[in-house]
Parts: sequence; structure tokens; C-alpha cells
Amino acid sequence: MRRAAVFRVPMAGPDDMSGLTALLDTATLDAQDIVAILAKTEGNGCVNDYARGFAATMFAYLLAERLGISKADVERRVALVMSGGTEGVMSPHATVFAMQDSPAQPATPEKRLTIGVAFTRDFLPEEIGRLPMVEATALATQAAMRQAGIANPSDVHFVQVKCPLLRSDRIESAVGAGKTVVTSDTYESMGYSRGASALGVAAGLSEIDASRLRDQDILHDWSLYSSVASASAGVELLNNEVVVMGNSSDVAGDLCVGHSVMRDAIDAEAVREALRAAGLSVHGGLDPADADRLVNVLAKAEPDPSGSLRGRRSTMLDDSDINSTRHARAVVNAVIASVVGDPMLYVSGGAEHQGPPGGGPVAVIARARI
Amino acid sequence: MRRAAVFRVPMAGPDDMSGLTALLDTATLDAQDIVAILAKTEGNGCVNDYARGFAATMFAYLLAERLGISKADVERRVALVMSGGTEGVMSPHATVFAMQDSPAQPATPEKRLTIGVAFTRDFLPEEIGRLPMVEATALATQAAMRQAGIANPSDVHFVQVKCPLLRSDRIESAVGAGKTVVTSDTYESMGYSRGASALGVAAGLSEIDASRLRDQDILHDWSLYSSVASASAGVELLNNEVVVMGNSSDVAGDLCVGHSVMRDAIDAEAVREALRAAGLSVHGGLDPADADRLVNVLAKAEPDPSGSLRGRRSTMLDDSDINSTRHARAVVNAVIASVVGDPMLYVSGGAEHQGPPGGGPVAVIARARI
Amino acid sequence: MRRAAVFRVPMAGPDDMSGLTALLDTATLDAQDIVAILAKTEGNGCVNDYARGFAATMFAYLLAERLGISKADVERRVALVMSGGTEGVMSPHATVFAMQDSPAQPATPEKRLTIGVAFTRDFLPEEIGRLPMVEATALATQAAMRQAGIANPSDVHFVQVKCPLLRSDRIESAVGAGKTVVTSDTYESMGYSRGASALGVAAGLSEIDASRLRDQDILHDWSLYSSVASASAGVELLNNEVVVMGNSSDVAGDLCVGHSVMRDAIDAEAVREALRAAGLSVHGGLDPADADRLVNVLAKAEPDPSGSLRGRRSTMLDDSDINSTRHARAVVNAVIASVVGDPMLYVSGGAEHQGPPGGGPVAVIARARI
Amino acid sequence: MRRAAVFRVPMAGPDDMSGLTALLDTATLDAQDIVAILAKTEGNGCVNDYARGFAATMFAYLLAERLGISKADVERRVALVMSGGTEGVMSPHATVFAMQDSPAQPATPEKRLTIGVAFTRDFLPEEIGRLPMVEATALATQAAMRQAGIANPSDVHFVQVKCPLLRSDRIESAVGAGKTVVTSDTYESMGYSRGASALGVAAGLSEIDASRLRDQDILHDWSLYSSVASASAGVELLNNEVVVMGNSSDVAGDLCVGHSVMRDAIDAEAVREALRAAGLSVHGGLDPADADRLVNVLAKAEPDPSGSLRGRRSTMLDDSDINSTRHARAVVNAVIASVVGDPMLYVSGGAEHQGPPGGGPVAVIARARI
Repeated sequence: MRRAAVFRVPMAGPDDMSGLTALLDTATLDAQDIVAILAKTEGNGCVNDYARGFAATMFAYLLAERLGISKADVERRVALVMSGGTEGVMSPHATVFAMQDSPAQPATPEKRLTIGVAFTRDFLPEEIGRLPMVEATALATQAAMRQAGIANPSDVHFVQVKCPLLRSDRIESAVGAGKTVVTSDTYESMGYSRGASALGVAAGLSEIDASRLRDQDILHDWSLYSSVASASAGVELLNNEVVVMGNSSDVAGDLCVGHSVMRDAIDAEAVREALRAAGLSVHGGLDPADADRLVNVLAKAEPDPSGSLRGRRSTMLDDSDINSTRHARAVVNAVIASVVGDPMLYVSGGAEHQGPPGGGPVAVIARARI
Repeated sequence: MRRAAVFRVPMAGPDDMSGLTALLDTATLDAQDIVAILAKTEGNGCVNDYARGFAATMFAYLLAERLGISKADVERRVALVMSGGTEGVMSPHATVFAMQDSPAQPATPEKRLTIGVAFTRDFLPEEIGRLPMVEATALATQAAMRQAGIANPSDVHFVQVKCPLLRSDRIESAVGAGKTVVTSDTYESMGYSRGASALGVAAGLSEIDASRLRDQDILHDWSLYSSVASASAGVELLNNEVVVMGNSSDVAGDLCVGHSVMRDAIDAEAVREALRAAGLSVHGGLDPADADRLVNVLAKAEPDPSGSLRGRRSTMLDDSDINSTRHARAVVNAVIASVVGDPMLYVSGGAEHQGPPGGGPVAVIARARI
Repeated sequence: MRRAAVFRVPMAGPDDMSGLTALLDTATLDAQDIVAILAKTEGNGCVNDYARGFAATMFAYLLAERLGISKADVERRVALVMSGGTEGVMSPHATVFAMQDSPAQPATPEKRLTIGVAFTRDFLPEEIGRLPMVEATALATQAAMRQAGIANPSDVHFVQVKCPLLRSDRIESAVGAGKTVVTSDTYESMGYSRGASALGVAAGLSEIDASRLRDQDILHDWSLYSSVASASAGVELLNNEVVVMGNSSDVAGDLCVGHSVMRDAIDAEAVREALRAAGLSVHGGLDPADADRLVNVLAKAEPDPSGSLRGRRSTMLDDSDINSTRHARAVVNAVIASVVGDPMLYVSGGAEHQGPPGGGPVAVIARARI
Repeated sequence: MRRAAVFRVPMAGPDDMSGLTALLDTATLDAQDIVAILAKTEGNGCVNDYARGFAATMFAYLLAERLGISKADVERRVALVMSGGTEGVMSPHATVFAMQDSPAQPATPEKRLTIGVAFTRDFLPEEIGRLPMVEATALATQAAMRQAGIANPSDVHFVQVKCPLLRSDRIESAVGAGKTVVTSDTYESMGYSRGASALGVAAGLSEIDASRLRDQDILHDWSLYSSVASASAGVELLNNEVVVMGNSSDVAGDLCVGHSVMRDAIDAEAVREALRAAGLSVHGGLDPADADRLVNVLAKAEPDPSGSLRGRRSTMLDDSDINSTRHARAVVNAVIASVVGDPMLYVSGGAEHQGPPGGGPVAVIARARI
């Protein structure tokens, strides 16, 4: 049988490859088995954040060297999802996901963590944030489920999508060619790209009815959302990379994943639910006895589009010095960190159509009690 | 007997006086009784934050009109502490503190909340962040205790100090006059001013031995701190304003205050302790049945000077786009908000010598169960 | 006859009224004569910039006291145009414009500077950035011309408009009432408001044909622009204030105004043209002998919407840390300052429909050689 | 004889290698001949700017591939000076410097451009910003002169130094080992590193008397400076890289370099002097007929430490949202761009001891009229 292996390693900078290098050098992990790397890098997480691209490049160079293939081949084989922005106390790190052959290992009575990865084609500037992006992402989500060995959408607990954004040069060229783009504001395009990608996941998992979706619903009808999608936009790619995480009877191992949905940015109770869903004990905070069973928490953060939280005005939407997603990441990471006792978590910003408005999915990967 | 009255009112902007105006217009509060206003305003909380001065000016104009005295007289009479920076989901608001004569009201068996206010003289640029500032603040703290009717330092639960900073023009003039200043970096001067003020509170409450303190300990020897001091630096004043909050047998009323010390920015357990110390029920979060008994939470936030939190690297000290105190405020407010279910809290940044390194005092004002 | 008087005074902060106070105290200027104050204040010049409101409030309080009228009456009588953002080396200051009765003074052979001021009604959120704003501004421009004694649009050399923006609370209330707004991004609304206001000036001066203008041309058809309009958006007002500056035979005095149009942000030659148009000598830079005849330069700055300048890529449109108008103001102020030898200039950001794309009007007020 | 070749290529991002790749692919340039690459990359130019490291890494990978040597060997052989921050209209680009063997080419009557490169050892954290850094840099400057074939310091017109900074982890480790560092503020350490490096250049060129220099003069005695030094601090190296540019009779070619010193940030006249010193015609701006003879302008920018410029207050030193070096770069680039008509220039921030306070060196590389 196959089994998932997940490693969380700190990064001292976007180009700090020492964590992954050590895993490979000690044969803890075989480079052949790596299917995805999700990292939190320390840029602004917005348009001109090159820390993401730097980290992705360094991971690709490292794996190219170890696998004896080209950098481009690594990028086609491994989903490299660099999520920018470590505001507040979030600690830069990478989570390395591998699927290993494990012939000797017997199946367990409970379902175990499995990972599937799929890629869409490159998108044209005029497709970003619109229905073609939704549709291609839905198909990629289903392809990744099949690869993971998951038949039932209810076994999917987190779907990470890395999606492109519109840069001014790409906007210029599209407009010059007589096309329209969904927005000419590059920062705003990140939201459209994430929103369309999340609706693609929702469509792929039948959380929404794709046939009734219209372009104008994207970033407008907030009643439409996925409870497990997480999308990050970056300047360093043109297509969508889709990583599905779920539990399956077809895999072995000692890991499992559970999730919940934060209703808003300070919903600590949802964090406790997600921890319990992954089999961990919680009283106020995570039970210290279970601390070393926690592998990572993955969550989405966004400013509440209403401009308020529990009836209190927030200032982040009117802040012209710090983008609102940066505020939101700081908050959600802090809340989760205060529950689990560890600030090195994967909290990605911009949760358009990813959970309810102002909220977002929160997933927990944990080592099962054996 | 006297009694304390405390009102928390939202602000739609630094010049939104509607909350206080309504309290005065409805005779809920008599302008004569106001001793202090602590507000969270929505600037950057750093050097060039004029939202603080704007709010302070508007409060002073309003009270001048209502009291029939000059703006300058208001400023000598009422401590106007505007703390800048509402990062994350912190919601701008003012907390108005009054001491009322309450002849009919009987003493209660338990001690009740009391407020005392005192002011130091104006400081010279070369005194800021040094021993003269510590000493003057210590004396003002003791004067404020006497005014509040508190004899025992253990009955003091929060001491808010508003202190000045060094602007480049003031540095220039001091240096031109042959003096040295503690730092020529204006942002850095805020930290020195807060640190010296906090040590002044610690000295005034005998938390430290003032006679052994040296200039070089300030912002260096982090083992020296106050567990109840909270200092905010602002460009709009030249002296220190000291507001002491504690419990006393000499006052009546239905309010009380309790405190704890957060060991670090994600110490949710300390928040729960402070809530319990103020007589509120907590299970994970604040018991919803007690939600309306909470008046406000007052806390300090700062970046951990070690650059890490629970062994995980933080990036805020190396962030040249967003000052580290802004990150810290977002985090501490989020953690407390997730426990109490309300993001409209008073979290002030820069906790030098206010609680242990990376941590800070957290105080809760609550309505007593009668 | 009437005559214009213009005073440029430095400001040490948004609430530094010492410059105007000195003018009034020394009777250099009579408060009765003041028609407009244009100031550069030191905030971010974007949505959450309260330095503008702070300065406007302090000017209004000062004039209210001196004129013996209410603050609200001052605001109805004097155009208080606070333009935020002093990036680069721009130096905060106010320019005070007055129209004085000057019975003894004979007419001059040349036309002399005159100022006219007019106000529109308050705008509804759904009108901002759309045709109703254009139309009301056109009428106010013509009213201000009449007041100034200017019949011919070619005698108008600068028209400053202060216009409102959309804050999230105002957007929420409009959308809640079933209205649409031109954008739900508060920062973006500043551009729409400036653009519609500038087209209003262009319509009022017959630079464009208002009857053919459509909502969708605003912020899209960049071939439509005014060569003399300058619009600044601020959170502190709901209507448009229009200040027309031009030359007239009906006034006396020793001041005159001239203008040119910068084709892009580094068009130093246009600055030299504007200086010459106002009667000053220039060789490379302003002739030192004429330095004390310069009263002020007023100009507009904006990022080139193409994302490039003279074929070279600019990064400001993709900068998520610093808004592009902030970059643009730093550049245009630096270029003009390097020509005139003084960085205390009025350069206002966001030149949508104010001059050609990436460029903007530049006007010079100077003392005539007598 | 040898000759210098210099190519300026635009960059669409820190990892855009297309410009250099094209030069190599078309054999315009032989990778063997490259001695230095100076690039302007589009980060914040401060501590957490990873665009510099990203670009340096990509250049090193490209040259490693083309030269058939390791990335580390490239870094030991070619000075890769990435200067962060393209504020205002500065356009990201690289300037590639090569020294070519040119046997057939005769000597010219005039001296021609030559380049020399040298490296210091790695510095310990406690050495940065202090005398050991000055001394090592002085020796490296002299070594680079020898390599360039320049005997007389008056033939040196620009010396670019890339120097390290203190990151919080390095500060922690030094302090933990009982050492002191010059500052514990990472952003401030960039200034100390640049200042000590510039004084090293000054010492190497006998502009100052190194034997009388004391640690406490660094960043304090502004009368000490080099007229040709340009230092950039970056997180991606631990030693100093020194690139000397000057004119020599020992080389052939068609390039030459000249320089002047800007007295302050808006000193357009100094720019005109530097252009003329390099043999170009200037009237107000660069003569269009000479535009294609300009290869690049290299200059330094810094906030005036007095907080004012020509008697006018600047706000950059009190700006807690945007670091002052970012303001300064925007200004100096704009001023030079307005003279030469091209915003794609090399303006590097932080000119401590590089030119007089608030000013800095400006050098022009031009094609000689033949």
C-alpha cells in the first residue's frame, strides 16, 4: 500500500533549503516520493512579493539536482505552493508532502491521509477570475482526487490551489489585443484569481452547482463557497496547481486530516473543532500531551467584506499603508497559535469563496493515536 | 462615597465624538466627573501618527465647551491617552473613566474600582528615556495612588502612562545645545520613553529598587519590569500623564479590576486568568452569560526581543515595511478577542519593561456580580 | 479694485497654525479676506489619512475664532483644501489665498491674479465618480470664474477641486439601500472622484464636450482631460470645493499666474515653460535673481497608467507596500524642486483626467516685475 | 590591450535573465570577460528584501552554466551587486561590466574606462560598522585599483561596494557569545555597514587619514566622506565586494567615466557637471543628440540627516510607514532622470560618508566621441 508522509521544516529565509536537504541527506525522505511542498514565505504576500518565487526556484533547483531531472521537469511533477506573508508571529516554514510505497505496511481500520496533485493548463489573462478558470480548476480537483484514491468528496478535507495573478504587463498585452480583463488593478486580480479557483474546487466537489454559476457571481455572491478550498495567488506561475488532501481506506500510514470552518477571524472554537476532528485532545488549548502529534494546521484568512467583526468596525479595509490580507493573516495565525501553542502554521490570505465571508477553512494534519 | 464609572464607546474616526457626546447629552455622565479618556485610534501608532493628536484635540475641545473652561485647562485636568494603532481586527474606541460622588451608595464588602490621575512636569529632550524620566514617573504614580485612595501597591492592577517621544526637530535643538539624546532615531525614541516610564511605575510601586537603577539598564536589562505598567508614546505631549487603576475599600460602585501577565503574545491562558481575576466565568472562551459584564480589556503588546516565539522564528523585527509593534498589536488583540469574543479592546504597543520580554500585562475591568 | 494676496507658510505639523496666526497677528492679512487655503499635509494621502482632517479642523477653529463665526460657517465660506502626502522632499506648508479690497491701487496694464471659490451640494455615494459629479463640478467651476471676474476660460490657469471619497461604511449603506457604487475599493474611489471632478472642470471650461460624456468614459478614455484641473480626494467632506485661479483685467496687485502641462513625471522642460509663462527667468534652473519672486508652484502627479515612462518599466503600479500615487508625488515634487531650488511646493497626487496620462498641469504663481 | 565593455539591460523581474542571456547568446559578450554586475532590483531595499538575493542567485546560476563552473565559483569571481529599491520611476535593470582582451585595438590619446574588482574576507557580526571593516575595505579598494590598472586615485570615479548587514539571528549569536554589535536594529545596521565601507574607500583613496579614524566617527562625523564611494548593504553576503571604476591610459575602448558630487538631493546642476565630465553636451537637459552616448548614471541617495533640505523641513526621517532611504532614492532618481531623459538609472540608497550629508556622488559612463 501507499502511505502519506508529511514533514514541517523551519526556514531561515526564502532560500533556506537546509530543512529539506537534511531530510533527503538522512534518507528520512526520498526525493522521488515528494508530491507537493507548501511553504509560508516572508514577503508581503501581495503583487510584488518575490520571496515566493525565490523559494520556489530554490526548491526546484534542489529537487532537480537530487532527481537528476531539469528544473522545468520538477515544476511539472511537484506542486510548489509558496504562500507569501508571515505577518504577526507566523513563522516561515515548509511542509513537504510525500506519497511513499509501503508494501509491508498493513491497512488500518481507520482511513488515513492521502495526497493527490493535478495541474491545469496555462490561463490567458482574460480567463483569470472568470468561468474558464473555475471549470479548469474543477476538473483538476477531480483529477487530484482520483490520484489520491478518494472517491467521496466528504473525505476531502483541504484543497490547496496555487493560482496566477495579473501583472501590469500582462494586462497591457491583453488589452492591446482587444481583450478585457476582470480588473486592471494587479492587487485586486489576486482576489479574483483566488475566488474563481475556490469556486472551481467547490464545483469539483459538488459543493455548488457549476452549471448555474455566472461570471458576475465571482467576488459578488458570497453565499457560494467551498468549505475546504484554499487558494493562493502568485506572480510566478500561469496555471493552477491543485493539491487535494483527504483520508482514504486505500492508504496506510499514521497520519490523518480533519477540518472545520472558522466563521470569522477570531473563531477559536472552530480551531478546537478541527483539532478534535483530527483526533487531538483540547481543553481551552491543545492538550500538551498531544502537542507532538500535531503535524500542521492549514487555514485561510481574509478581511470581513462587511468591514466589521462581531458588530465592531475593523479598519483594515480602509488601510492604505498595509493591505487588508496582511492584517487578516496576522489575526488568524495568532488565534490558531494561541490554541495550539505554536506559531509555525500555514495561514494563507485571501479567502474569497473559501468559507463564509470573513471566515475560512481550517484543517489539521495529525499523527493518529495508534 | 465616591464611585468609578467607566464607559466604552466606539469611534468611527479620530474625530468621532458622538459616543461621548451622547453620554453627556443624556446625562449618563457628567463632564465634571471625567478623570481620563483612553482611546485606541487608527493611525500607525508610530512617529508620524497624527490621528492620536487629532482625537486628543477633539476630546479637549468638546470637554472645554461642556465645562466652560479652556482647552489647555482640560488638558491639565483630564488625562487624554490616545494609543495609536488598531492593527488586525482591533476596533477604534474610547474608554471614558469618571469618578463620581455617590453619597447614597453604601460601601460594598469587596473592594471596588477606583481611578487616580497625576502628571509630571515637561521633560527636556535629553531626559527622555533616562533616569530623570523614571524618577518623575515614580512620584507621579504614587501621587495618582493617593488620589485614587489606594495604599497598597498590590491593589493596583493597571497603570497607564502617556509619554512623549523625540521628534527630529527636538533632537536637533538638543544636540545643537550641546546635549546628548538617548537615540537619534525617532521611532526608537518611543521605545526608550515607554521603557523609562514603565520602570518609573515599577519604582513607584516598589516592584524594582529605583536606587540601583542605572541609565544603561533601560532597554537592556529585561529582568526589570512592572507587571501592571502600560506606556504609550505620542508626539502630542511633552510630559507624562499617569492613570492608576485599582481596587479600594474607600469607593463604592459595581466595577472591579483584575490582572494577569501574558508571558508571550499568544498566552491565551493568561487572558483567561485575568478574566477570572475580575470575577468572570471562562470555559475556553468567556462564558456568554458573562459577556455583558465585561467593560474592557487593557493589555500591552510587543515584539519578543529574541526574534522568536516558543522557539519559532518571527519575522517582525526584520520587517522594513511594517514596524514590529504593529505586528505585535495585531497578534495580542486577536488572541484576547478570540477569548472574550469581542475585538474592541485596548491593546497598546511597545511593552518595554512592561511585563516580561515579549509579554505584557493584561487587565480586565468588569461589572461585579451583585 | 480688488487684488489677490497669496502667502506660503511652512507647517511643522498638521496642527501647526503658527504661520497663519502670525500673518493675522501682524495684520499682514485680514481674516475677512481669506477665500481659500491649500495645504500639503504629511499623511499617506490615501484613504486613512487623518492629517488632512486634522489640519482642516485646526484652520477652521482658528478662523472661527478670528472671524467670530462658527466652525461650520468658516467651512461654508473658505475653501479648505488639504492635500495629503509629502513624499520625497516635499515640505508641509499652507498657501493662503485672499482677495483684498484695494481702493487706492490702480489697474495695471497686464492682467493680475484673481481667485474665485464655489461649492457644490453634497454628493450621494452612488453619484461619486459618475456624471452627476461631473455636471455639478462644471457649474461650480463657472460660478467660481464669475466670482473671480474671469470671462474667458483661457485666463484660467489652475482649478483646484477638493472632492470626497467612498469609505467602507458609506459603501455599505448605499449598497444596503439598493444602490450601486462606482467601486467598492475605497482607495480606488479616490481616483474615480478625482477623475469625475477633473472632467467637471474640463466641461465647465469647454475643454471637452460634456453632452457627449458617458459614465464609462470616466477613468477609461484618457484622451479626455483638463489642462488646468487639479483634484484631491479626502475623507473629510461630502461635496466638492472649487478654487479657480486665473488672471483678470478687473483686479490689481502684483501677482500673476501661468501654467504649462507636464507630459510625464520627469518633464522638467514643462516646468521651465510654466515658470517663464509666469514671467520668471530660467536657465537650466530658476534664475537665482528671480527666486524671491516665486510664490508657489502647484502641480499634479500620477503614475503613468501604462506602467512605463519613456519606454522604461516603472514598478509603482505593482507595488503593494506603497501606493502608486505616493511614488508619483515624490517624483514630480523632486523634478520641480530641482528646477526651482525649493522643495516646499504644492504637488497633489492622482491626476486622472488632469493633463495627459502620466502627466499633469503645473502652474506657477509669481510676483510680477514692476 | 584590454578594454572595458558595459551593457545596460532592462529586467522584467528579479529573475529576468533575458537581457544577459541575449548578450551571451548573440556573442555580444563573452561570459569569461564579465567582472561585475550592478543591478537595481525592485524590493524595499531594506532588511527583508529578498529580490536582491533572488537576482544574485539567478545571475550566478546563469553564469555557472555558461562558464561550466560552480555557483560558488561564480560568486568568488564576479562581483554581483544587487541594489534594492526602485522607488518613484526608477526602472529595474542590470549593468554588466566586462574587461575584454582587445589585441588589435590601438591605445587612444585619452584615458579610457577600466574596471577592477576585489573582495574582503567575511566579517564577524561585531566587526560590521567598525574599524576592521574600514581597514579591510581600504585594502580591497587598492587591490581593485591595481587590477584595473589605475595608479592615481584621481582617476577613480566610482567605487561600488556591496556590504553585509546584521540580521537578528546574527546579532543574537554574537551577543550570546559575549560580543557587542554596533546596533541591534537591523535596518540601522545597514547604515553602519555602508558608512564603514565608504570610509574604507575614502581611506584606500587617501581622501581621509585612516590612522586618525575612530569607531565613534562612523555615522557621526559627517565631515569625513568619499566623493566616489557608493555602498549598498544586503542580507545575501558576509564580506565586502569592491568594484572600482576609473579611466586609465593602459586600456583601449570607447568608454569613459566622469563624476561630480550632488550637494543635496535636488542638485540638478551637479548632474549636469557629471554629464559634461563624461564628455556629453547638456543644455538644461542632456542634448538629445548625445542621448545614445549615455551608458548609465550611477548615484547615491540619502535623507539629509538634518531633517531639512535648503531650509525646508522634510518628513522622511519621521515617516514610520516608508523608510527614509526609499524616499531619498525616489527623489535623486527623479532629478537625474529629468536631466538625462531616462529613468533607468542606478541610484542606490544610503549615502553615509558617501558625499556630503544629504548629498552623494554621481558618476556617468559614456561612449566617447570618436
